[in-house]
Amino acid sequence: MINRQWTVAARPQGVPVATDFELRESELTRPGDGEMLIQVLYLSVAPVMAMYMSGESIAQRPPLALGDVIHGRGVGRVLVSRHQDFEAGDIVHGQMGWQTYCVTAALPEDRFYRYSATDLPAHLALGALGMTGYSAYCGFVDVGEPRAGRPVLVSGAAGGVGHMVVQIAKNLGCAPVVGIAGGPEKCAFLQELGCDAALDYRRDDLEAQIRAACPDGVDLYFDNVGGEVLDAALENLAFGARIVLCGSIAEYNLDEPRGPANYTRLRRHDASMRGFYVYNHEAGFAAAERAMADWIRAGTLRPVQQITDGFEQLPAALMGLYSGANTGKQVVRVHDEGET
Amino acid sequence: MINRQWTVAARPQGVPVATDFELRESELTRPGDGEMLIQVLYLSVAPVMAMYMSGESIAQRPPLALGDVIHGRGVGRVLVSRHQDFEAGDIVHGQMGWQTYCVTAALPEDRFYRYSATDLPAHLALGALGMTGYSAYCGFVDVGEPRAGRPVLVSGAAGGVGHMVVQIAKNLGCAPVVGIAGGPEKCAFLQELGCDAALDYRRDDLEAQIRAACPDGVDLYFDNVGGEVLDAALENLAFGARIVLCGSIAEYNLDEPRGPANYTRLRRHDASMRGFYVYNHEAGFAAAERAMADWIRAGTLRPVQQITDGFEQLPAALMGLYSGANTGKQVVRVHDEGET
Repeated sequence: MINRQWTVAARPQGVPVATDFELRESELTRPGDGEMLIQVLYLSVAPVMAMYMSGESIAQRPPLALGDVIHGRGVGRVLVSRHQDFEAGDIVHGQMGWQTYCVTAALPEDRFYRYSATDLPAHLALGALGMTGYSAYCGFVDVGEPRAGRPVLVSGAAGGVGHMVVQIAKNLGCAPVVGIAGGPEKCAFLQELGCDAALDYRRDDLEAQIRAACPDGVDLYFDNVGGEVLDAALENLAFGARIVLCGSIAEYNLDEPRGPANYTRLRRHDASMRGFYVYNHEAGFAAAERAMADWIRAGTLRPVQQITDGFEQLPAALMGLYSGANTGKQVVRVHDEGET
Repeated sequence: MINRQWTVAARPQGVPVATDFELRESELTRPGDGEMLIQVLYLSVAPVMAMYMSGESIAQRPPLALGDVIHGRGVGRVLVSRHQDFEAGDIVHGQMGWQTYCVTAALPEDRFYRYSATDLPAHLALGALGMTGYSAYCGFVDVGEPRAGRPVLVSGAAGGVGHMVVQIAKNLGCAPVVGIAGGPEKCAFLQELGCDAALDYRRDDLEAQIRAACPDGVDLYFDNVGGEVLDAALENLAFGARIVLCGSIAEYNLDEPRGPANYTRLRRHDASMRGFYVYNHEAGFAAAERAMADWIRAGTLRPVQQITDGFEQLPAALMGLYSGANTGKQVVRVHDEGET
């Protein structure tokens, strides 16, 4: 059986370009003891993949060499299982790589999870009901400790994690819930999601926009971008504010990363900046999935997934993240759920 | 009665220079209702005073104009009291300004505190048993949540706050307690204070020095300096580490302040950076003073105060802070405790 794979052709210099990727075909190997053969249904598209391509070692995962298959999470159907926890027919999500079929490696960090919300579409395992949703829920709720009735600010609010965070904040009664995104279309999307205010970072003076939306200061800022947006948030903290650092896409591709120049604002307001790495919060995944699935079924959380069709579209979808074109969680459909 | 006062002659451009200060004499006014006349015994010397001179508004205190008396905390003897909480003869500490006598203003933020540890020298009210000590104790203990047996790192460890933090850490059983300072003399001073390791930031590769002293990472970093020292600490965090932001002298006088370029390290380690402003922790002052005074009496905490004699030496003492010449808390003696 032929497997198609996207590999690292060259190290991205900043934002990845088409010539950094190479499509390859290879013969599938058979799964060994403890392994599975998985038909990949959907693959996730996220900035961390460009970091892997650049040769960064993340989460104990060894750096990618030139020619290696690009890392990426996927959801798929188990075709053959020699793994004691799974059987053929299961829908699972985990690290699959940019390929159409996956023979699971036995790396301990490459843990797979059975998708349990089978009444809901499988691609949600790459969104609200998988790592993206766990990042939103565990980061916002467990790390950020939101308070009902208090102002919440979210950057990258139209993105995969961000658009869930604003909806979680609304479900928990935070007020106002203020989203930041780029451009009028994304801001309209934020209004649709229920944001009390949608701020466009491309317009002048984000700092003043935040102040107008949260005149008493921000109680909890969920940061997906870093850079100047983080600076502007730091100028608008309420006493005891928390900043949750989830992502920093504004800084991934800088040669010389910059820190928040005004981080000393944390002192004046007894505020804190809290980093978190979702894989450290595995104990909270089940509760996160339960809460998110319940809100989806109740209609109070609407996961937005942009599904691009076709395995060959993966590089374009990744490059699109940096153009600011994406809304919601980006996934690529590799096989139809009905196809074998 | 003649009062001598140091005033702002010019706005400091970066580190203050002698021509930024002007000595003036004026006639003392009589204290009105709710006011006191205080004979100033000692004045504190700290970097925040240069920030006031630069025209910054700090802690709701209006910015200093040219010609104004420079702000500064002092300890003194009440000569005349028309304030219901104090009487003549009390030793009090609070905002007195750079002058030999002080008629207290009725500003609510200019709260005065009676010095209660009368068995110990009065100048400790500007050190271990005043705001400096409260900063060390409330910041390290209440905000930092130190854990016995876990590694603590302190920058500016030979300074007014820092040299108390390392001793508090030893008293609480943190291990190792690692101090950072500039030059072999200060490092020798840190060893005398009981530091398990003393790192010289002027030597190459502070990051590697920290790694050698705390091979399993730093559990609690108390930051008095910011800048490259903070960067180096961020590279050496243990899981769940806390960074307490107390000061950032490396950044006070930069035209373009820089943030910690690698602040995203907080994410990998589920670490947090916690700002604090001592005046927000007034509820903890009494406990701090009690704990510190008990350790001083027991001989397990040794406050080091550099006392410079003479009111006219104030500008030189402030400028000396930036040359890295100071060890312990800097105070200037204005009047002998016995003199009237």
